[in-house]
Amino acid sequence: MSDTKSANAMWGGRFASGPDAIMEAINASIGFDKRLAPQDIAGSRAHAAMLAAQGIITDSDAEAIREGLLTVLSEIETGQFAFSTALEDIHMNVEARLKEIIGEPAGRLHTARSRNDQVATDFRLWVRDQADAAILGLDALIRALLDQAEAGADWVMPGFTHLQTAQPVTWGHHMMAYVEMFARDLSRFRDARVRMNESPLGAAALAGTGFDIDRQMTAEALGFDRPMANSLDAVSDRDFALEFLSSATISAVHLSRLAEELVIWSSAQFRFVTLSDRFSTGSSIMPQKKNPDAAELIRAKIGRILGATVALFTVMKGLPLAYSKDMQEDKEQVFDAADNYMLALAAMTGMVTDMTGNRDNLEAAAASGFSTATDLADWLVRELGLPFREAHHVTGALVAMAEEQGCDLADLALADMQGVHAGITEGVFSVLTVQASVASRVSYGGTAPAQVRAQIARWRERLG
Amino acid sequence: MSDTKSANAMWGGRFASGPDAIMEAINASIGFDKRLAPQDIAGSRAHAAMLAAQGIITDSDAEAIREGLLTVLSEIETGQFAFSTALEDIHMNVEARLKEIIGEPAGRLHTARSRNDQVATDFRLWVRDQADAAILGLDALIRALLDQAEAGADWVMPGFTHLQTAQPVTWGHHMMAYVEMFARDLSRFRDARVRMNESPLGAAALAGTGFDIDRQMTAEALGFDRPMANSLDAVSDRDFALEFLSSATISAVHLSRLAEELVIWSSAQFRFVTLSDRFSTGSSIMPQKKNPDAAELIRAKIGRILGATVALFTVMKGLPLAYSKDMQEDKEQVFDAADNYMLALAAMTGMVTDMTGNRDNLEAAAASGFSTATDLADWLVRELGLPFREAHHVTGALVAMAEEQGCDLADLALADMQGVHAGITEGVFSVLTVQASVASRVSYGGTAPAQVRAQIARWRERLG
Amino acid sequence: MSDTKSANAMWGGRFASGPDAIMEAINASIGFDKRLAPQDIAGSRAHAAMLAAQGIITDSDAEAIREGLLTVLSEIETGQFAFSTALEDIHMNVEARLKEIIGEPAGRLHTARSRNDQVATDFRLWVRDQADAAILGLDALIRALLDQAEAGADWVMPGFTHLQTAQPVTWGHHMMAYVEMFARDLSRFRDARVRMNESPLGAAALAGTGFDIDRQMTAEALGFDRPMANSLDAVSDRDFALEFLSSATISAVHLSRLAEELVIWSSAQFRFVTLSDRFSTGSSIMPQKKNPDAAELIRAKIGRILGATVALFTVMKGLPLAYSKDMQEDKEQVFDAADNYMLALAAMTGMVTDMTGNRDNLEAAAASGFSTATDLADWLVRELGLPFREAHHVTGALVAMAEEQGCDLADLALADMQGVHAGITEGVFSVLTVQASVASRVSYGGTAPAQVRAQIARWRERLG
Amino acid sequence: MSDTKSANAMWGGRFASGPDAIMEAINASIGFDKRLAPQDIAGSRAHAAMLAAQGIITDSDAEAIREGLLTVLSEIETGQFAFSTALEDIHMNVEARLKEIIGEPAGRLHTARSRNDQVATDFRLWVRDQADAAILGLDALIRALLDQAEAGADWVMPGFTHLQTAQPVTWGHHMMAYVEMFARDLSRFRDARVRMNESPLGAAALAGTGFDIDRQMTAEALGFDRPMANSLDAVSDRDFALEFLSSATISAVHLSRLAEELVIWSSAQFRFVTLSDRFSTGSSIMPQKKNPDAAELIRAKIGRILGATVALFTVMKGLPLAYSKDMQEDKEQVFDAADNYMLALAAMTGMVTDMTGNRDNLEAAAASGFSTATDLADWLVRELGLPFREAHHVTGALVAMAEEQGCDLADLALADMQGVHAGITEGVFSVLTVQASVASRVSYGGTAPAQVRAQIARWRERLG
Repeated sequence: MSDTKSANAMWGGRFASGPDAIMEAINASIGFDKRLAPQDIAGSRAHAAMLAAQGIITDSDAEAIREGLLTVLSEIETGQFAFSTALEDIHMNVEARLKEIIGEPAGRLHTARSRNDQVATDFRLWVRDQADAAILGLDALIRALLDQAEAGADWVMPGFTHLQTAQPVTWGHHMMAYVEMFARDLSRFRDARVRMNESPLGAAALAGTGFDIDRQMTAEALGFDRPMANSLDAVSDRDFALEFLSSATISAVHLSRLAEELVIWSSAQFRFVTLSDRFSTGSSIMPQKKNPDAAELIRAKIGRILGATVALFTVMKGLPLAYSKDMQEDKEQVFDAADNYMLALAAMTGMVTDMTGNRDNLEAAAASGFSTATDLADWLVRELGLPFREAHHVTGALVAMAEEQGCDLADLALADMQGVHAGITEGVFSVLTVQASVASRVSYGGTAPAQVRAQIARWRERLG
Repeated sequence: MSDTKSANAMWGGRFASGPDAIMEAINASIGFDKRLAPQDIAGSRAHAAMLAAQGIITDSDAEAIREGLLTVLSEIETGQFAFSTALEDIHMNVEARLKEIIGEPAGRLHTARSRNDQVATDFRLWVRDQADAAILGLDALIRALLDQAEAGADWVMPGFTHLQTAQPVTWGHHMMAYVEMFARDLSRFRDARVRMNESPLGAAALAGTGFDIDRQMTAEALGFDRPMANSLDAVSDRDFALEFLSSATISAVHLSRLAEELVIWSSAQFRFVTLSDRFSTGSSIMPQKKNPDAAELIRAKIGRILGATVALFTVMKGLPLAYSKDMQEDKEQVFDAADNYMLALAAMTGMVTDMTGNRDNLEAAAASGFSTATDLADWLVRELGLPFREAHHVTGALVAMAEEQGCDLADLALADMQGVHAGITEGVFSVLTVQASVASRVSYGGTAPAQVRAQIARWRERLG
Repeated sequence: MSDTKSANAMWGGRFASGPDAIMEAINASIGFDKRLAPQDIAGSRAHAAMLAAQGIITDSDAEAIREGLLTVLSEIETGQFAFSTALEDIHMNVEARLKEIIGEPAGRLHTARSRNDQVATDFRLWVRDQADAAILGLDALIRALLDQAEAGADWVMPGFTHLQTAQPVTWGHHMMAYVEMFARDLSRFRDARVRMNESPLGAAALAGTGFDIDRQMTAEALGFDRPMANSLDAVSDRDFALEFLSSATISAVHLSRLAEELVIWSSAQFRFVTLSDRFSTGSSIMPQKKNPDAAELIRAKIGRILGATVALFTVMKGLPLAYSKDMQEDKEQVFDAADNYMLALAAMTGMVTDMTGNRDNLEAAAASGFSTATDLADWLVRELGLPFREAHHVTGALVAMAEEQGCDLADLALADMQGVHAGITEGVFSVLTVQASVASRVSYGGTAPAQVRAQIARWRERLG
Repeated sequence: MSDTKSANAMWGGRFASGPDAIMEAINASIGFDKRLAPQDIAGSRAHAAMLAAQGIITDSDAEAIREGLLTVLSEIETGQFAFSTALEDIHMNVEARLKEIIGEPAGRLHTARSRNDQVATDFRLWVRDQADAAILGLDALIRALLDQAEAGADWVMPGFTHLQTAQPVTWGHHMMAYVEMFARDLSRFRDARVRMNESPLGAAALAGTGFDIDRQMTAEALGFDRPMANSLDAVSDRDFALEFLSSATISAVHLSRLAEELVIWSSAQFRFVTLSDRFSTGSSIMPQKKNPDAAELIRAKIGRILGATVALFTVMKGLPLAYSKDMQEDKEQVFDAADNYMLALAAMTGMVTDMTGNRDNLEAAAASGFSTATDLADWLVRELGLPFREAHHVTGALVAMAEEQGCDLADLALADMQGVHAGITEGVFSVLTVQASVASRVSYGGTAPAQVRAQIARWRERLG
């Protein structure tokens, strides 16, 4: 993809033998880089306009080029374009077709640029679009979670550690935990977008150019904040792709965690949630069986997204400057990871929107297992002034008593409780139900419905 | 892909709403699993024959099924088959078309099996084919390396450590190092093939079946050594894919190492090797510039192969038995890794076959840098009985003297050498040239041309 | 680690400035490679014996060296040895101490070898030991699983797909699925051991040696099958480590799957299994809470094992032959992965040995959700000759009827069933219970207790 | 690590059997989390002060706790502290020792918190410190590169694509490409630091607390910008570690690229650079051999850093909320990656500071291979108005002529050149030398010394 390398047809004089099928198979990128056509054409149009503005080509040539490129784009968008493997890549395909359409002026387009800065620009524009799409997709998912949180701000469910019931929490609180995660993802993509938003165009092959170009102008035309400040770096850098992939992988962790929960929650043993038919598949003979296929596939997507990340890190390891052909392996990884990440985001948004929390099952599960034991211990500390560790001791004894009596903590007789610790009063019962427990956790960020609603309101305002 | 789950059309009665576009996009596998058509049809043909042999279906039904499947295969191979996303996967696509062709008997094919054991069988057969292809590809590459080794069995070149000249070696010896590596890869694929060559067919959905099937018969028909011994494992296992991927990644390490050497060796600074035009690309304006594109792309391929390996490991992590939809993510990773591994093998074989070692440059480089200093030290130990560490001391002094005199070790005057250590004799000069050095290293596996030729002969005999 | 490079003390004359703290920190390996002391000393003892047998050193020198090395080993084993960072690595540490103990003959030990083949030998011996340990550990785990399988060969439990009940299976059958997985792991380590069991010793720095050494003799003394056939490969190869890591990662997938099941199964919602106190942790105030810590940690171990695998693949990518210092990064990764893999194996063996399947809960879960619907459909095909797809249709209608009546399939009246399909007879009830279902699945590898017991017997015999 | 789980000693009554050696080995974290002691103690001191300020504990208890914790810290820092594996982790170790020192008030410290929010706080503080260290380390490396760039702002060297000379560039320009890369890394760590700088403290086990705590106060005391807004997220989140690791891996790519260049450049064939003795190792017998050990080790470090990243991604995949024991695997990975990343940064800074570019060799290499052919083509476009593609054609012919004549482009006779294209004038010679070439590339970010100096000045100003 270096400037000084041209399409096969042009090697003719130089190479005794043409590249054979293997070489063509390993070398040509048109099979995948045709996805960059809109970016490639946008970049070329900006370049042509700048060349004319700087007097490097004539206005009429620029106009012909810019119009011709629109024709090419339209041919591609309508499926009329015949991509050629012999022309190797999207850049040569577009330019060759441009020449057919407008003739000689097409030969002036490549002035003061190279395939090296061209592909760097195209790919960067593509990844920037994906960052924007990720931001939109995350926004939609966050809104879907906010709706779920609002609907169940005071539904009680088990808060798990080790998949064992630890303390009661609210459905809304659990949903809001994911809002925090996906909001961090969103901010990570925003930061990445700012960092990548610099224009490689004008770096030429690697050294810059002696033509009197205006890189600021092309940068602006393409929505970049500024031109990149070092031409070697401009053609060698794939940080923007690595950062996009890393950010997508972190987000895929969050998707996988929520998906895992949905799979477990929709098992016959949990029945915490009912997924919609739209995002499940069924059995023709077992009607009650609803397979959470979408959740499983989303859970799995981190595999290929992480895989793509590892792939590009491995490719880039130890590459000398400036351009090495190894870097051609960048696009397919990012394409696949981005496609699957966006799909997973959309599917999760759909699932979250459609799903129904089974309030009764959630509450029943929350109440089992002496889940308010911590509340009891805290009450002993707070009301009776017991040191934390002693309060735990007393609580353990009370729980053991309840277990022995086969009842819940709230069902113990006050007298029995006082047998364990004389200072216990009626007031203790106010913390022993799961509703009381969650209502009491009003510390900032806590699970109390009031806190949850405050966080929902804060997010609604932030998102606008 | 579970047995009890059917194509969309069949959920109709159950699901209030059909899966929408997102669900179809994330759920359907036909976009990629159509590559399994030949394996799917072979599996179904074997299954039908067995059902008839066991009296579970009639001979005429089996015959109709088996013939009809050949028709389907032929339609697919000739590009006449219209794949349908609504039919989700290759299994349903084939079966639906079979029904159109042969009518009612098609409905009997799925007796005593499930999509779970069907896809496990198809994919295993596909991976087994790839293992065979890898073995063939490695065999070809090894032969190309043997030819290079033979041609340059006695060409002297630098043996590097840290990319610094350490001792002279022979070109043949260097080539044979890669023969050892790729031969280990070959044996690894052979072991993997043995381990994977068991038939999942007959495991049904996950529990086996009550039909009186003969799993041995279908196993044999499909070239498997035996049926798998546990039906849950049969539908849950993807070890064969993981082991194939791991083996391919190890081999990709070897390819990347050789590719790196070829890139460095074809630089203007090294000029150790000239790559053929077939596997290079040039510049229309810099005729001497020959970019080692194929070598760079091969070097990069480990990225996506390792990436695919990581992807599938990550997908499989923590999946409960038996089938989870996550496992649908297995195929694209293996397809991509296998395709690219085979391509890299072929391209490397082509490059090795075509390349020309530049004997003069190799030898000149070998002779620089006092590369026979170790030989000198060894001579002092062997002939004069000096302890190893003392011999090193004397050698260091002699090298320093040569450096000062601006000459090579072989150019030092005997008297001068005796000034450093009185015991040195004329005999020392017999080890100071690079030719003498390599000729002397006759220990088993050493770099002496005689050793190299013995190893070439051994390999030629083994490969047949 | 190349032969021609010596401990810091020896650079003195050459380097104007000593390596500073940073260089020492990044360069010295003694902090971790001291674990190779036993292997290093075994290798040196074999080497010394061979040198004497070949007449390269005297018998008395060899004897002094071999005895002295035993003293060094004993000092290391008893913690008396003072490791020195200035001496960089285990090889120099041992040799320097040997010199203190036996004096001048120590200087003859390094004849005809190099640190390059020395470290390759040490590390290969270490990894071989780990392969042996893995084989033993897997054997123990398999036996623990066989015991569980035997105890519950006929306990009925749900067979899941998508974590949804699909068909009843037996506890024994489920355990035996893991026996198959871990047995494949075992065979993979066996193959890896065979492949790695070749001796690098005698490759010297990279080119072999002119001394008349006997590589076969040292190979035999160290338990290797043969010497490696190419000296460049011998010092450059880390395949044995990569294959060990890959095999451990595949096995870690299996451990993570079983661990995930144990975590889910020990939730309050499932209660399929009770883990022993030994491998759980509790809460001082919630006595019923039993956190499956060991299972979670085992599930997580694949992270670092896969991480180590990726690390070494990445390190080895694109390294030119022969030795590059990058390769020093190999040991810590393998040490950590091996330690954690062995620990995970042991913990899983302990957990499996101690755990108790809750037979009643398992059976109750198996019976829910019309899990014998498939059996009903199969009965319709088998007994009434319905095509598979039609049988599914009839079954769907019967399940819908049962769902409507709020009863199980086995509770439907025969007359009602005949209303759906007139051909249904009394015989159908013989397949509608979960016990009948599992008993009927007698296909090879199926879930029927008889099949499970046959597989247990087969494995018991194979393991001896 | 959940709140409701206590040190082994406390399970006594509950568990029939104590955890055995395996469980202790897999479960205890004190072996590595003792590194968090300073953070743990800072967190506890802030917590105690807040509890007193809110009237939850008395001022005198808080004072005793805060003083006692300083004593513990001092014991740890001076190596007097006896860590106990039976006490599992750093939190219990510190608290137990605190109790020994101050008695009963120690029991009040754990009020309104849990080990879950405690470890989340400790680890986050630790990672934040590493982000700060990375920022400092990168700043130092950038300054070292600026110094190199300044020294050789106008040294001409080859600009490579595919490791083939493409166009001349300047040494300063090449150094500045790395300045851009490391500066992006620095900004990435800055963004990560902002995102992670929120306090988990006060989330308690997972649900928040009913105590009237002031999370804003502890957040401020610990330098956090604010408390985290969701308590479930606070104890479940490890994004800060994943983002730190991802950022370190991207930076490690840059380190590996520069390291690869240094390895190649210090080969005998290139001799572009001379590394200092401080960061090389030598040979006792081959004085000219200078192994670039530090460069190779830096190149390799991406392996373990990427490995750690993959490890933690894999661990976190699919974990349900809130705390799972799997997450205990987070620390060792981050510790190792951070340690090695900082070491690599320091070593690279040292190497860059010490290295000497070999100006003559660089320039000689730049001049070879008709490296100004592109300049010639550009001249034809610019001065004669040829279309780009035609200019390339003419240039190819001139290069072929020079190659035939065995001379450089600048040595061709004007008349000969005019034979190829009549319009060529004397002026052409002004672009045919490498000095003229680099001087001409004055486009923004180009390789012209003036551009390079402008960029150096810009960076010097930005860094202050």
